[in-house]
Amino acid sequence: MVFMRFRPQLIASSLSRAPKPSRTLAPQPLAAAAARRRSLTATLSFSSSSSMAGAAPSEEALRRALAERQTAVDAQADAVRSLKASGAKEGVDAAVEALKALKIEAGAAARRLQAAVGSGGGAAREEMRQTVVNTLERKLFYIPSFKIYRGVAGLYDYGPPGCAVKSNVLAFWRQHFVLEENMLEVDCPCVTPEVVLKASGHVEKFTDLMVKDEKTGTCYRADHLLKDFCKDKLEKDLTLSPETAAEFKRVLAVLDDLSPEELGAKIKEYGIVAPDTKNPLSAPYPFNLMFQTSIGPTGLSVGYMRPETAQGIFVNFKDLYYYNGQKLPFAAAQIGQAFRNEISPRQGLLRVREFTLAEIEHFVDPEDKSHPKFVDVADLEFLMFPRELQLSGESAKLTKLAEAVSKGTVNNETLGYFIGRVYLFLTRLGIDKSRLRFRQHLPNEMAHYAADCWDAEIECSYGWIECVGIADRSAYDLKAHSEKSGVPLVAHEKFSKPREVEKLVIVPSKKDLGLAFKGNQKMVVEALEAMSEKEAMDMKAALESKGETNFQVCTLGKDVVITKKMVSIGMEKKLEHQRVFTPSVVEPSFGLGRIIYCLFEHSFYTRPSKSEEEQLNVFRFPPIVAPIKCTVFPLVKNQEFDDAAKVLAKELTAAGISHIIDTTGISIGRRYARTDEIGVPFAVTVDSATEVTIRERDSKQQVRVGIDEVASVVKELTEGQSTWTDISFKYPSHIGPQGDQE
Amino acid sequence: MVFMRFRPQLIASSLSRAPKPSRTLAPQPLAAAAARRRSLTATLSFSSSSSMAGAAPSEEALRRALAERQTAVDAQADAVRSLKASGAKEGVDAAVEALKALKIEAGAAARRLQAAVGSGGGAAREEMRQTVVNTLERKLFYIPSFKIYRGVAGLYDYGPPGCAVKSNVLAFWRQHFVLEENMLEVDCPCVTPEVVLKASGHVEKFTDLMVKDEKTGTCYRADHLLKDFCKDKLEKDLTLSPETAAEFKRVLAVLDDLSPEELGAKIKEYGIVAPDTKNPLSAPYPFNLMFQTSIGPTGLSVGYMRPETAQGIFVNFKDLYYYNGQKLPFAAAQIGQAFRNEISPRQGLLRVREFTLAEIEHFVDPEDKSHPKFVDVADLEFLMFPRELQLSGESAKLTKLAEAVSKGTVNNETLGYFIGRVYLFLTRLGIDKSRLRFRQHLPNEMAHYAADCWDAEIECSYGWIECVGIADRSAYDLKAHSEKSGVPLVAHEKFSKPREVEKLVIVPSKKDLGLAFKGNQKMVVEALEAMSEKEAMDMKAALESKGETNFQVCTLGKDVVITKKMVSIGMEKKLEHQRVFTPSVVEPSFGLGRIIYCLFEHSFYTRPSKSEEEQLNVFRFPPIVAPIKCTVFPLVKNQEFDDAAKVLAKELTAAGISHIIDTTGISIGRRYARTDEIGVPFAVTVDSATEVTIRERDSKQQVRVGIDEVASVVKELTEGQSTWTDISFKYPSHIGPQGDQE
Repeated sequence: MVFMRFRPQLIASSLSRAPKPSRTLAPQPLAAAAARRRSLTATLSFSSSSSMAGAAPSEEALRRALAERQTAVDAQADAVRSLKASGAKEGVDAAVEALKALKIEAGAAARRLQAAVGSGGGAAREEMRQTVVNTLERKLFYIPSFKIYRGVAGLYDYGPPGCAVKSNVLAFWRQHFVLEENMLEVDCPCVTPEVVLKASGHVEKFTDLMVKDEKTGTCYRADHLLKDFCKDKLEKDLTLSPETAAEFKRVLAVLDDLSPEELGAKIKEYGIVAPDTKNPLSAPYPFNLMFQTSIGPTGLSVGYMRPETAQGIFVNFKDLYYYNGQKLPFAAAQIGQAFRNEISPRQGLLRVREFTLAEIEHFVDPEDKSHPKFVDVADLEFLMFPRELQLSGESAKLTKLAEAVSKGTVNNETLGYFIGRVYLFLTRLGIDKSRLRFRQHLPNEMAHYAADCWDAEIECSYGWIECVGIADRSAYDLKAHSEKSGVPLVAHEKFSKPREVEKLVIVPSKKDLGLAFKGNQKMVVEALEAMSEKEAMDMKAALESKGETNFQVCTLGKDVVITKKMVSIGMEKKLEHQRVFTPSVVEPSFGLGRIIYCLFEHSFYTRPSKSEEEQLNVFRFPPIVAPIKCTVFPLVKNQEFDDAAKVLAKELTAAGISHIIDTTGISIGRRYARTDEIGVPFAVTVDSATEVTIRERDSKQQVRVGIDEVASVVKELTEGQSTWTDISFKYPSHIGPQGDQE
Repeated sequence: MVFMRFRPQLIASSLSRAPKPSRTLAPQPLAAAAARRRSLTATLSFSSSSSMAGAAPSEEALRRALAERQTAVDAQADAVRSLKASGAKEGVDAAVEALKALKIEAGAAARRLQAAVGSGGGAAREEMRQTVVNTLERKLFYIPSFKIYRGVAGLYDYGPPGCAVKSNVLAFWRQHFVLEENMLEVDCPCVTPEVVLKASGHVEKFTDLMVKDEKTGTCYRADHLLKDFCKDKLEKDLTLSPETAAEFKRVLAVLDDLSPEELGAKIKEYGIVAPDTKNPLSAPYPFNLMFQTSIGPTGLSVGYMRPETAQGIFVNFKDLYYYNGQKLPFAAAQIGQAFRNEISPRQGLLRVREFTLAEIEHFVDPEDKSHPKFVDVADLEFLMFPRELQLSGESAKLTKLAEAVSKGTVNNETLGYFIGRVYLFLTRLGIDKSRLRFRQHLPNEMAHYAADCWDAEIECSYGWIECVGIADRSAYDLKAHSEKSGVPLVAHEKFSKPREVEKLVIVPSKKDLGLAFKGNQKMVVEALEAMSEKEAMDMKAALESKGETNFQVCTLGKDVVITKKMVSIGMEKKLEHQRVFTPSVVEPSFGLGRIIYCLFEHSFYTRPSKSEEEQLNVFRFPPIVAPIKCTVFPLVKNQEFDDAAKVLAKELTAAGISHIIDTTGISIGRRYARTDEIGVPFAVTVDSATEVTIRERDSKQQVRVGIDEVASVVKELTEGQSTWTDISFKYPSHIGPQGDQE
């Protein structure tokens, strides 16, 4: 549920900045989101870098060296001036030569420092990103929303190929998780009444700190301004003393732990002003990130656009548990839109105001977190970045999942199982496994109630991006809603021997309620049965004293009158035959847009055209992800080929394979290049009415296939029953005129 | 875009109630929605019913008959009283007998009238609906959202089987429309800035009339109160004079044409008060149905949750047209959430505050609306309800689509093509074709700019429900956004001879802009190029006089300074080589939730259990729609069968077939009943490690199939390559002990 926001490795961004002591009391969004944001990694790597960075060319030493050289230059310049002033001729030339040498040394020191702190690698990354982003925008993978009205920051459309990639990723997610685990998928509304988000803690805590330009009212994220200031100084101001540099680094590291007052004080101290106008800034204050609205016409019922999909599952726990035959463990899942009214969204598709989440809530007995299918993933080996490695300043290490669980690095089998499944999901989509790591939350990043949390982080041009959060959230969420709603969200385990206890019993008289409320009876009955003990006892008292009482039925949107005969309420002694407990929940939460953006970067490459005059763009999407599975080109404009292409297209449609026909007269090479650029894996060139050529995108290999076999061959390839190797073995290869000529 | 709201045939509900004259000026939502709502059908059938209802037992005659009988009873009663008072003994008995006879006659007349006007059939429908709805809720097809907090009217969750049905319907929609027509699917955000919905007309016109309880502030839809009052009187007050009855009917018929003042006057005249409190009501006033919110932190930027998905397509027309190689026709499609803040939602899943729309915008040259694939649907024959039949009081008639188009009943081939495709889509889903009709909008229901509109209406227990709207909206929407944004949303057709015209030319200097804005260059360039002629000329003047000017770039969320060298602006004479025109759009718009609800009702039936002790519920979903394709039962609890079932389940998962294993010890018959109730089409009973029984839900037939063939057999069945008849022919049938015993 508590889905991550953009957090490049060395830049912290927090959902909340309440001072530390409050965290122990804090409800989930603070703890699980804010805490999770705290970039202790940054703290540690920074604080250690100046003293024990080892092989790294110590930045502090470089700054000191530069300062010393500069002092030497200044001293020598003074000496030269004195010599010249004294009229002495001898020694001047030597002194000037010495000054020149010192200046050269100082210049070299400055360059060394610049290389160490500057954004040299950043520039290359930025350039690479621009190439990808240009291709993505030109090919309408995505489009800034409402572009003709100059757009809205943080809102993007998926254009045709992007939309197809997204729906393919979602279909694969359903296959890989929902179907594989028999999960109970639900679909809840985005509009959410306030009470739900009060229970979850979002109304109180889902905030970022904001400052306003005091003259224009323009808003900024306070931490971003401070961060930008410090980073800019560190990267560009070579005259910074090592002490000041260390101070800026410390600020960057603790950015998310700063209280509003501390943040405000730093902004004052550094003289940070509004970047666009240079006007002074207000003190920082919290801004709630939920889009607020009003449900119904009265204006009295506050609602929000959900900031995550998980709450819809938690509030339905009771029904889902019964649906599952009252058995644990089981998982529910939901795919849907979520909304966060970012103060000033940056970084393109990675921080947006509306996005698709796919969330799983796997409910499990807290006393037994084993998983029967853990064996299926136990042998996987991938980059893991547990606490210890982060704390000792090392990097992520290839680790066998079984070992991580058996050693206790990963808290339990169920959590381990989902980590393994997430790894398989991401790599099968096409995420480069060398740029994927599972990073464990540091103790102070994690909510106090959480047992363990890991993020699947994917490296892209923005740094390491949190794309999936996998958290064992214990019983926190269900308990919060149980308390607020008065409806017990619990599971049961049968006892061998029953126990006696006193319990509230509400028995609505369906007959009397039916007579009184007809079609609405069911809703009244449900509302009566949903009363908390206190509400029920109040009603009992009212009914006994006055014979009737008003009763609000929200599902009807009005009050009804309940009379004494309509319901019997009492406390009864009962035998209990079971243990009643709140299940723990393991929550894998996927930010679809981030995964897709990283996938775009990981899938992108360029290769020279045949004439080597230009670089051609290619997305190497696996067939399962590719927006369009195959293109059909008649080799030349010709009725026979066009007709054959049309018949083929019909067969592809019938087989459910997305395709495009390109009948433009341009060269085959150009047409290949065009479809490579949107990642179409297979191209079919029709050069006869009976046989065609199929060309694979990345190898550019071609095979000859009978036209009536094409649909089934492409279907096998895209559904994964065959690989290109199988096909190129089975069918004759082709090196014909219709090659990649451009 | 303008998607329909719930409109049972005889009940009108309007999006807007502006007085008639304004309609000619009205933007699309009023015209296309409000107008569409006007229940002229109702007007006509009502106004004609009292005079020329033909075979129908004239209600007016019945009312008159009852009134006459009642008068006779009263007269005779007076006579009896007079006789008795006069002390006369003779004749009293006879007079009393006569009175009794007259009373019996009056009673019979009252019953006849009651039968004619009452909701007798309604009660049966209501009962049927309750059975379906109870099953749906018990099996978690849907759940009132946030139930543990007593819910929110008009918000529902899809629980596991409902969610699966929904995603199957959507997948089929994608296959049937997007893939088949190579449509460009897009995915735009729900949060929409005000300017877009001002252009579309929603900000001004997307309203319902509301009244408030003057004491409690509770809100009601004004037309609903008036409608309920009139209906109630007509159905239950048998003493109503035929004249008053006619008046109430007239009111019902013109309900949607009433101005706020007229509506208020009627409410006053009839003394209608708040139904819950009997308090007086305020005068009616318009309430905008969009959920309003605020984008970004300043509170100054108004946004709404989109009331439909179509606008996202219209604003992207330019990019999509280029993506399509600047060729017409082409279609774009979008599936997504839409939001309407109903005043007081009723009628369960049919009128909700958040729902999924699937919309197609097919752009076409207004001068050529032929469709190359019309031949594929031309021979379809189904119930059509054109204007003429509605106006003459007849019912829908079986009509061949080709004929409807050739006769001009359906305006053009493209519209006809989509009507045919919608028919195929709905019937393949399982909608009963005898309860599906295509109703043409009457002239005054339709927007003034629309060429023709048809609704696919499905009959369910609420009456005939508008589930798909198929409208030829001409160029209205693109023109509205062109005007508001200043960006021409047009298509081109090459001329044989070029023409000379004067045109605005904006040439940004990418080099200078790149130096000044670096990574933001692209956004600045786009904003410059998107300037309207007026904006550009203003900038040109400012640059010439001051050398620089401020320029707002919304995608950056701030102003930038543009200097003279960054852009050249001028008017140039140009040769035009083409016709520039605004395409027409044909818009099929699907209310997924309504289609699914109707599908639930059409698919539901009951049959006696074997012992005939109870009625078992069944949903006869076609395999493509069924939430779960197959269940797997080990015949008895036994390690061998359990293991075989697990292997089988794994194969089903690998084949992508959703399934459940039921290993509860209960009888096979009970287990069949359980899965019939959620519409699982196939049940596999494992009674050996090598061979199993597959049972089909509706026929209850069983066949024996080798265990290793099961996955492929079920896959063929669910993907439609084989029918049950094929399978039952191919494999030996089975009449074994594991029948439907219950």
